[in-house]
Amino acid sequence: MAVYTEVTDDALTQFLERYAIGRVVAFRGIAEGVENSNYALRTTTGDFILTLYEKRVDPAELPWFLGLMEHLAAKSLPCPLPVRARDGANLNPLAGKIAAITTFLPGIWPRRPTAAHCAPLGEALARLHRAGADYPAERVNALGPHGWRPLLDRCGPGADQVQPGWRGELATALIDILAQWPQTLPCGQIHADLFPDNVFFLDGVISGLIDFYFAATDFFAYDIAICLNAWCFEADLSFNITKSRALLRGYQDIRPLSEAEIAALPVLCQGAAIRFLLTRLYDWINTPEGALVTRKDPMPYYRRLRFHAQTRSAADYGL
Amino acid sequence: MAVYTEVTDDALTQFLERYAIGRVVAFRGIAEGVENSNYALRTTTGDFILTLYEKRVDPAELPWFLGLMEHLAAKSLPCPLPVRARDGANLNPLAGKIAAITTFLPGIWPRRPTAAHCAPLGEALARLHRAGADYPAERVNALGPHGWRPLLDRCGPGADQVQPGWRGELATALIDILAQWPQTLPCGQIHADLFPDNVFFLDGVISGLIDFYFAATDFFAYDIAICLNAWCFEADLSFNITKSRALLRGYQDIRPLSEAEIAALPVLCQGAAIRFLLTRLYDWINTPEGALVTRKDPMPYYRRLRFHAQTRSAADYGL
Repeated sequence: MAVYTEVTDDALTQFLERYAIGRVVAFRGIAEGVENSNYALRTTTGDFILTLYEKRVDPAELPWFLGLMEHLAAKSLPCPLPVRARDGANLNPLAGKIAAITTFLPGIWPRRPTAAHCAPLGEALARLHRAGADYPAERVNALGPHGWRPLLDRCGPGADQVQPGWRGELATALIDILAQWPQTLPCGQIHADLFPDNVFFLDGVISGLIDFYFAATDFFAYDIAICLNAWCFEADLSFNITKSRALLRGYQDIRPLSEAEIAALPVLCQGAAIRFLLTRLYDWINTPEGALVTRKDPMPYYRRLRFHAQTRSAADYGL
Repeated sequence: MAVYTEVTDDALTQFLERYAIGRVVAFRGIAEGVENSNYALRTTTGDFILTLYEKRVDPAELPWFLGLMEHLAAKSLPCPLPVRARDGANLNPLAGKIAAITTFLPGIWPRRPTAAHCAPLGEALARLHRAGADYPAERVNALGPHGWRPLLDRCGPGADQVQPGWRGELATALIDILAQWPQTLPCGQIHADLFPDNVFFLDGVISGLIDFYFAATDFFAYDIAICLNAWCFEADLSFNITKSRALLRGYQDIRPLSEAEIAALPVLCQGAAIRFLLTRLYDWINTPEGALVTRKDPMPYYRRLRFHAQTRSAADYGL
């Protein structure tokens, strides 16, 4: 369910008058996405996506996200380009929210990622890291390592209700991960949420990278670790090293990893697993039953965490 | 939430090989609709809607619905035209369901219907009735008057849990409505669910009538009564006679009503109100908490029923 805010036809017409993209021809809510309201918008001049930012996104951070998308699109990365209104603004009010129009990207996200998707994914991730390197602004990763302990604390005793023993076990795992966390690694703008539903393919080639609203300034290799978690586990939660190897090779074809990055992969993967485990756990505890949002089960990320905790080196990821 | 069935890219590619509409370019779930899974599909030749039929639709009835849409589209009604596969079939298996591809219709459905929408709506409804008159097949309206008592019985004591006293009160109202129900009136194919989200407008003109999966063979004037319920009540549930008058005038510009139809309007409106009241009540009782489907409150249809029960003649609807 990705339409939280209804837009009346009058409000839409008025909103579009700010832009030089013609008049509305069609307007349909998009089912994908969980954070914001997204509409497919067709005007007399083309196709666009209209996004209304819902409560999880801090309006003060929107210019950073849209600036990054503009920066990356200018470097030919296939990411949505924010469309500017006649007055130059790329964020405007609509239906009581802040909204943006971005270009429409073709393609389909892979419902069942295969190894054949993972090499182009790795390449695209490396290109994203290179293209974003000279984006001048910085954004602290609120869901990076410094955010995990506070997030676990906010889950409180609820963690043990979801799974007995988790509160203590996750606290111990966190201490261990944070103790091993690298002090410094090559760093820049990362996507931080490049799951299959944020990557469009067309004829085997990546045609779109979307949803930059978790992007932040952090270790590049941590972004790889997020992708290894998101793309390389099978439905039965077994790790597919063929996918992992393809992803890492694709990445290194564009941006070779340093020794320090390679050595850090196991702990970065643990960190990425616990990051999604914690946000899912928090949402699980705090989403009222009957809410429109689908709660995502935190357990698969616990299983990933356990896998990464027993890896010994990057060799276990196919390097 | 209108995507219940996920379609993998491989399955979609194979499915499209049956059709001569080119290769897939984009594929996005559509948020609107509650009965089936709908996707916006773009191919190298154009835009389409792909529908997967979910459990509420009886597969045996699909040829009737698609035949009706084809019949109406051939008469220039702006309704989706089912696209036939190379072998002529307009229904084909996909992801364990039956699926159809239909043409894409431009336009936006009015989130806040005004009187200006109601005249073209009435005209379009009359055109639909005229165009469908020579569609040879018949479909019994399962949600017509004969279906209401069994539906109330299936709600059982749950009706009183939703609203104390409803079980008895609705049974009494039903007896009264069925006793007054016309024996015969001009009859043919009706849409039976022409709510605002099933009607697209473009520059004030109707550009699309969609979702024919409740269509049936029944009194034309009952279809009008459904529209009066769906379009002519304000958010505070007051009846807007200006809208009603516009709707009825628009209708009569194309297909004048007989005296019998006019005289029957109050009871037909009561019937239409109780029909939506009962299905909403049944869903309310039988939708588990936490389900992805939004339960629709039956109360606004109780309020409509009360309004219609105190009208005396078609004059109360602006005729």
